[in-house]
Amino acid sequence: MSAVAKRTRRARARAEEAARPGSTGEKYREMSVAEFFAKNKELAGFANPTRALYQTIRELVENSLDATDAKGILPWIHISIRQIEGSEGRGGRPRYTVTVEDNGIGVPVTSMAMAFGKVLFSSKYVIRQTRGMYGLGVKAAILYGQMTAGTPVEVYSATKGSQYVYMMKLVIDVQRNEPRILERGEWNKRGSWHGTRVTLSLEGDWSRAKSKILEYIKRTAVIAPYAEIILETPDGEIYYFPRSTRKLPKPPRESKPHPHGVDIEQLKSMLRSTRASTLREFLVKEFQSIGDKTAQDFLEKYGLDPDLKPRELLKKGRDKLLRRLADALMEYPFRAPKSDYLSPIGSDIIEIGLRRMFNPEWVGAVSRSPKAYRGHPFIVEVGIAYGGGIEARSEPLLLRYANKIPLLYEEREDVSYKVVSSINWRQYNVDFPAPLVVLVHIASTKVPYKGVGKESVSDVPEIEAEIRNAVQEVARRLRLYLSRKAREEEAIRRSVTLAKYIPEVAVSLAYFLRPPSKWQPPKPEEVKKIQEALIKIVARHIELPPVDGKTEDPEAIVRRIVESVELE
Amino acid sequence: MSAVAKRTRRARARAEEAARPGSTGEKYREMSVAEFFAKNKELAGFANPTRALYQTIRELVENSLDATDAKGILPWIHISIRQIEGSEGRGGRPRYTVTVEDNGIGVPVTSMAMAFGKVLFSSKYVIRQTRGMYGLGVKAAILYGQMTAGTPVEVYSATKGSQYVYMMKLVIDVQRNEPRILERGEWNKRGSWHGTRVTLSLEGDWSRAKSKILEYIKRTAVIAPYAEIILETPDGEIYYFPRSTRKLPKPPRESKPHPHGVDIEQLKSMLRSTRASTLREFLVKEFQSIGDKTAQDFLEKYGLDPDLKPRELLKKGRDKLLRRLADALMEYPFRAPKSDYLSPIGSDIIEIGLRRMFNPEWVGAVSRSPKAYRGHPFIVEVGIAYGGGIEARSEPLLLRYANKIPLLYEEREDVSYKVVSSINWRQYNVDFPAPLVVLVHIASTKVPYKGVGKESVSDVPEIEAEIRNAVQEVARRLRLYLSRKAREEEAIRRSVTLAKYIPEVAVSLAYFLRPPSKWQPPKPEEVKKIQEALIKIVARHIELPPVDGKTEDPEAIVRRIVESVELE
Repeated sequence: MSAVAKRTRRARARAEEAARPGSTGEKYREMSVAEFFAKNKELAGFANPTRALYQTIRELVENSLDATDAKGILPWIHISIRQIEGSEGRGGRPRYTVTVEDNGIGVPVTSMAMAFGKVLFSSKYVIRQTRGMYGLGVKAAILYGQMTAGTPVEVYSATKGSQYVYMMKLVIDVQRNEPRILERGEWNKRGSWHGTRVTLSLEGDWSRAKSKILEYIKRTAVIAPYAEIILETPDGEIYYFPRSTRKLPKPPRESKPHPHGVDIEQLKSMLRSTRASTLREFLVKEFQSIGDKTAQDFLEKYGLDPDLKPRELLKKGRDKLLRRLADALMEYPFRAPKSDYLSPIGSDIIEIGLRRMFNPEWVGAVSRSPKAYRGHPFIVEVGIAYGGGIEARSEPLLLRYANKIPLLYEEREDVSYKVVSSINWRQYNVDFPAPLVVLVHIASTKVPYKGVGKESVSDVPEIEAEIRNAVQEVARRLRLYLSRKAREEEAIRRSVTLAKYIPEVAVSLAYFLRPPSKWQPPKPEEVKKIQEALIKIVARHIELPPVDGKTEDPEAIVRRIVESVELE
Repeated sequence: MSAVAKRTRRARARAEEAARPGSTGEKYREMSVAEFFAKNKELAGFANPTRALYQTIRELVENSLDATDAKGILPWIHISIRQIEGSEGRGGRPRYTVTVEDNGIGVPVTSMAMAFGKVLFSSKYVIRQTRGMYGLGVKAAILYGQMTAGTPVEVYSATKGSQYVYMMKLVIDVQRNEPRILERGEWNKRGSWHGTRVTLSLEGDWSRAKSKILEYIKRTAVIAPYAEIILETPDGEIYYFPRSTRKLPKPPRESKPHPHGVDIEQLKSMLRSTRASTLREFLVKEFQSIGDKTAQDFLEKYGLDPDLKPRELLKKGRDKLLRRLADALMEYPFRAPKSDYLSPIGSDIIEIGLRRMFNPEWVGAVSRSPKAYRGHPFIVEVGIAYGGGIEARSEPLLLRYANKIPLLYEEREDVSYKVVSSINWRQYNVDFPAPLVVLVHIASTKVPYKGVGKESVSDVPEIEAEIRNAVQEVARRLRLYLSRKAREEEAIRRSVTLAKYIPEVAVSLAYFLRPPSKWQPPKPEEVKKIQEALIKIVARHIELPPVDGKTEDPEAIVRRIVESVELE
């Protein structure tokens, strides 16, 4: 049969298929998740060449940090961005080769191809605070590279225990969502290197992305001062962010699910896979925050049989009982989720970071105690910096972080923006334009991002309330500082005229207090005594408004002025 | 071996595995896309019971509209929301059963299970303007139902040509992303019914979702006045939105890809599957906007061999040539994508809709000519309504639509909000607070949503510019109206004192113009003549500022006032 005849036959078959009774003419098909994110690349943050370059750096750096600080290793991260020669001109668009290398735990060779070549394959699908969580980011960058540069990703990796360094060059088979390995190799390790080095090429726009990428790394350095980060840019510049502390925060631990965070579907899957032989054992074994006593009380309260076999609940006709258990797990006042599993930044590091970044006049920070939303523990931390090197702006400069990731885009949709922009700052003695910076960090085993690009956090009521409390707590301290400063300025204005004469007057009085026959230089303790009396008199005339119910001692203020006067 | 021994052995095996040289202790695994969206349900718009109920209605209604108006059928859609009895109390949370029925093209029985039981399976993965595009929405609703109510979805469907009505009850196997059919049936059709009826249960919050759901359906009715929509609420109310026109917009057609929208990955897949035997044939056959002449010019310009076999480009060592072709396809100034494939609303329907919804004093709308971004054609339409029944607000009330879907959430991140809030409305004679409504509709074969929940549109520069042009175009008309109104009001104020005496004076003058001997009632034509002269005199004293270079005739204004005076 000729090619033409073949084609005609195929066309006819399709027409018949479409005309078949019951057909709607619609063509149904399946799409792999890799194809889905390739076709809709803006969903993962790859909307244009600028965002794509930024997002690529982000995803690689976040993986590197997860492989280091979250594993007790002091991070060393080397980022290099190079423009590919001749990538412009004659229809060419600027393309870059990005390499990120770290000293992390590495990727075992058995998982390497999948970890870089299959969307939704990850080690982060456990209950734990990590920067990554979707198993998507780096793969989205690799896909974007394939689509815009047509080149494979190259990965070198060695784990701590392994004797070898492994290499793979691969592409993602978009239709099947599987890795296709083009080249592989292994070498005997020299030295003790472990870590991962990823190289990929993509279309980008460095001139526009530069400021965002630098800002991202600066903000990362603020809250990870224990990391050493080197950035080589296509302009040939090298930015070096040295380590300023060797103190690592406690790495996050993995946890079991909290009963408030478990839906029916998940409950079924837990009932299917549990090795517990009774409902009571199931509760104690598979959940956090349920001990023997709690389990007993819980089962009694909802009239559930403690000795029921878990698999019984999956049988036909047990739907209602299953739903009752699911509802009860959501409702019962279990202990809040444990914060052991979280790794906050800590108020010290936040204050150090803000000081280093802005050199402000005043800094305050708080790391709140853990709370939970729908069974997910979270901690909110807030830092505020004021004055000094900060520029005055018409609204606070907001620095947002989630699980130690700086968030730079989509600020106005973020819960932190919602809170910070709704605060009545006048109440805290801040009148805009003002030199005010607010840093908000949300740490959680599940950050409720609005999109897979991880740029803004949903306004979950529990998180919103905690951010508000935290901001208010630090803002109250700022108010205290600002009103003390204002009061001092006022007190100084009022009393400085008087107070600055005190030392001289005291000396003169000391002379005059003796009869003229005994005039001689007064002793320091005499002068001191008179000075004290004068301070009391002047202080009596200073009225200070109370702040938060407390009034500062006016004497202390006068004394500070007196001490600053130098007698000639 | 006892159960205990078995468990111990398993634990030991795991410990050994973790301690193996090269292991990092990390547990890697794959996640199905169904599990991904179940675990991260907020990504698809199911962040809480309120949003979930709203999103469920949306997804079902949008599918119904895609199955009707996009197929030339006048839509009839019946929505029912019922609270499940006894779903509250004793740890229970309110649950609802939602049913949406339509008179659409139906789902063929061969695709039914997959269309409702597999995430990323759809008939919408073609280049065409449809409301749905991800193959995700209804499945996300079904997943949410499974997770919160633990019940299957029930689907009835019949296509036009089929003799049967089919039914299936199914759940999505979350781990495998496959449908699991629990029950199925088929019946002989009585009458000619075709369409789809979907019923599912889920946890929701009707009291909070109500206003959003009603708003959503009202806004749908505004731009789909040809649809008949009935909504039964859990409160026992029935909202009926009757059809107000039988005129359907032209259904959208499917198109071939435009060369500006094709990346390297897609180009490879097209080269693999094409039946063309030369590069030249490939271009003409597989793309829109490339004819024989264009193909020739294109190939010459970039020095590409017209007779090259398409598959040659996929061979090793041809990477550079392939990239050159991909770049050239992006760069060459091909004809813009065809708008045949788009189905805009039309300025008439927008004006009718705004009038019906707000009963305003003034309405204007524009449907711009088609443009394209990255190879995707799009049309922007804008309507503005002012005054009358519209409440004054401190900023414009913005109604956003994309492919005829009303968008209600995340307004501040939307490109339309960005444009409308940046317009200097004073320039158009609008001083806030003002009674101003702005409607923006974006129709495209690919709407660049920011998230899979389809609530806000990214600020693609080409789209942003078009929205700005469209808003300005209609706003200029509004300014004309408002300044005419202002001028008329001013002219009236100035001349009304004079003008309202004109009729009486004219009659008096008519008497006086004859000698007293001939006094008798003047003839109407005499009065008319004098009146005309007086109008000219008065009008000469009215100065009107020119608007957009045109000055309205002052005589016409005086004449209108004169005509409105009634003589006693």
